[in-house]
Amino acid sequence: MRYLGKEEIENIAVGAALLGTGGGGDPYIGKLMALQAIEEYGPIKLLSIDEVPEGALIVPSAMMGAPTVMIEKVPSGEEAETAFTALKEHIGQEIYATMPIEAGGVNSLLPLALAAKLGLPVIDADGMGRAFPELQMVTFYLDGVSASPMVLADEKGNNIVLNAINNKWAERLARSATIDMGGSIMLAIYPMTKEQVKESAILDSLSLEEKIGATVRHAKENELAPVQAVLELLGGFELFKGKVADINRATTDGFAKGTAQIVGVEEFSTETCTLFFQNEHLLAKKGEEVLCVTPDLIAVLDTDTGTPITTEGIRYGARCTVIGIPAHKKWRTDIGIETVGPHYFGYDVPYTEVENLQKSKVK
Amino acid sequence: MRYLGKEEIENIAVGAALLGTGGGGDPYIGKLMALQAIEEYGPIKLLSIDEVPEGALIVPSAMMGAPTVMIEKVPSGEEAETAFTALKEHIGQEIYATMPIEAGGVNSLLPLALAAKLGLPVIDADGMGRAFPELQMVTFYLDGVSASPMVLADEKGNNIVLNAINNKWAERLARSATIDMGGSIMLAIYPMTKEQVKESAILDSLSLEEKIGATVRHAKENELAPVQAVLELLGGFELFKGKVADINRATTDGFAKGTAQIVGVEEFSTETCTLFFQNEHLLAKKGEEVLCVTPDLIAVLDTDTGTPITTEGIRYGARCTVIGIPAHKKWRTDIGIETVGPHYFGYDVPYTEVENLQKSKVK
Repeated sequence: MRYLGKEEIENIAVGAALLGTGGGGDPYIGKLMALQAIEEYGPIKLLSIDEVPEGALIVPSAMMGAPTVMIEKVPSGEEAETAFTALKEHIGQEIYATMPIEAGGVNSLLPLALAAKLGLPVIDADGMGRAFPELQMVTFYLDGVSASPMVLADEKGNNIVLNAINNKWAERLARSATIDMGGSIMLAIYPMTKEQVKESAILDSLSLEEKIGATVRHAKENELAPVQAVLELLGGFELFKGKVADINRATTDGFAKGTAQIVGVEEFSTETCTLFFQNEHLLAKKGEEVLCVTPDLIAVLDTDTGTPITTEGIRYGARCTVIGIPAHKKWRTDIGIETVGPHYFGYDVPYTEVENLQKSKVK
Repeated sequence: MRYLGKEEIENIAVGAALLGTGGGGDPYIGKLMALQAIEEYGPIKLLSIDEVPEGALIVPSAMMGAPTVMIEKVPSGEEAETAFTALKEHIGQEIYATMPIEAGGVNSLLPLALAAKLGLPVIDADGMGRAFPELQMVTFYLDGVSASPMVLADEKGNNIVLNAINNKWAERLARSATIDMGGSIMLAIYPMTKEQVKESAILDSLSLEEKIGATVRHAKENELAPVQAVLELLGGFELFKGKVADINRATTDGFAKGTAQIVGVEEFSTETCTLFFQNEHLLAKKGEEVLCVTPDLIAVLDTDTGTPITTEGIRYGARCTVIGIPAHKKWRTDIGIETVGPHYFGYDVPYTEVENLQKSKVK
């Protein structure tokens, strides 16, 4: 057990932006909310799953919706609490702790703000080890954990308790309710016992995010190469270095979908890297060559500072390095690839591990 | 207290079709379900509101969605029960009785089938005295009764508990969930105490529907003019007599919207009556002259048999009589007109009572 204060939150926010792989919502808003909650209610208790009593109820908290909307429609913090209270009453059991469902973007940080406010501990774990756009794209799902009962709450005070027959229905019903409720809402979802979290979650993700942030900060302060330091920490690969040439982005069906083109910066370079995103970067190609594909992580870092750049924050002319990071082994199973692999997202490429794609390149 | 058997159901179905003013879903399916439930579980206990104990919880049951879909997607009866069970558990109180929210169409009869199945009494009342297309269009709403908590259940087994901040939000959120859940679902909605029902419902509507059915049947059996008999019973007006010339119908946003043209059958007649519907007939015009407009009732009867014709059942060439019936006085208030008057539905005509429209014509 340890406490998360302001410095830890700053580091977690950097790690969340990186593991967010461009999506998950800019962690900036989540960071502000978590910092403010700490200011008001004090530091947040972080527990490893083994410190939780047997049978305790753990309920992840998450924002659902297009990050583009969220930037315009900042959650007040009330929504998350409303969702929690409604779910507690529906289940009829006290909630022992919360946790993120994503180790990426705003959803890494919003549960911290809620935990501070409610005086609940946060479990050092998540359900993705990165960010993904849909509710069933969590490792809990791979083990058959139900997203229901779940509660959706909006800033107006509406709440919906959803009992879906499976997690794809949960996603479908929640997605259209979200659009109806203004494009972004707060969820209390995937209620689990301690035992379910231990078996099905990706553990120690908040600590990993914090380490990423600390690494970037240390490299900056000591004028070391920040991208290289991150790659070493995460066992990742540099995929492409260049500058942003073109961004196509549209919010459709509650998602920010689009592509970004990065052109080479070496003299006479004619190479172009294309990133395909649906909230998150899901596929990186150089011409027709696949550099990295989901569920492996594709992140865009500012070449000079190592700061992660989100798909929302990506700007024409920015000098950046695209990196690839191996996904957690839970995603590299058959059911993992079926759930979040390239075919699910409509990309007609097979899944190949980033380390194998990069190995073949070296040859 | 009395029991409803098969003969009563047959009569109620005719009254429901007439008060359904063309919409509310063809009562035929509801009738079959109610008859089958009586066959299986015995007659249904009908209570007047004064026979209900103080503080008892009464929960209306209703189908939501486009009738067009419902014809293809007949409810199994399980959905209504699922919705009831989920609402009972959510509220934490036994449900004493059910009732219809509409005195029109399928929603008059489905609660009877549910009541037989669950062994619950039905209250002789409803929330419209006719049929209307949206959830907030009930007299309960005029008195500030909340539609929430309400439960939506589909035939797949999904259920949603909706806690909306007001009834327009309830309508909006439930409508899009309904479309998502396949276009038609069953609701447990507007949970009320006995006292709320007594104050806010339209009383004795099931008995009135039964009387309408008995009147039509009696006229048919005795070769009397059935349309005239119905007009006398309800204090209504013959608006137009003709045959169906043209029907335009589309299912948009979960509603069956459209127009029907009735042309005069008198020799050399060049008159045309146009009916505008949104599930229900809401406006009848002859040329530019308004004959009758919502909330007053517009029904289309088979001229020979007096049998009500729904907007779904309306067929080219059918000989029919369009009638107008004064709405219940609860609808003729300012808030009533605001809620279900012509402007709400987008018709640019003022509300004038059908008896005044018809009086001025005689002059």
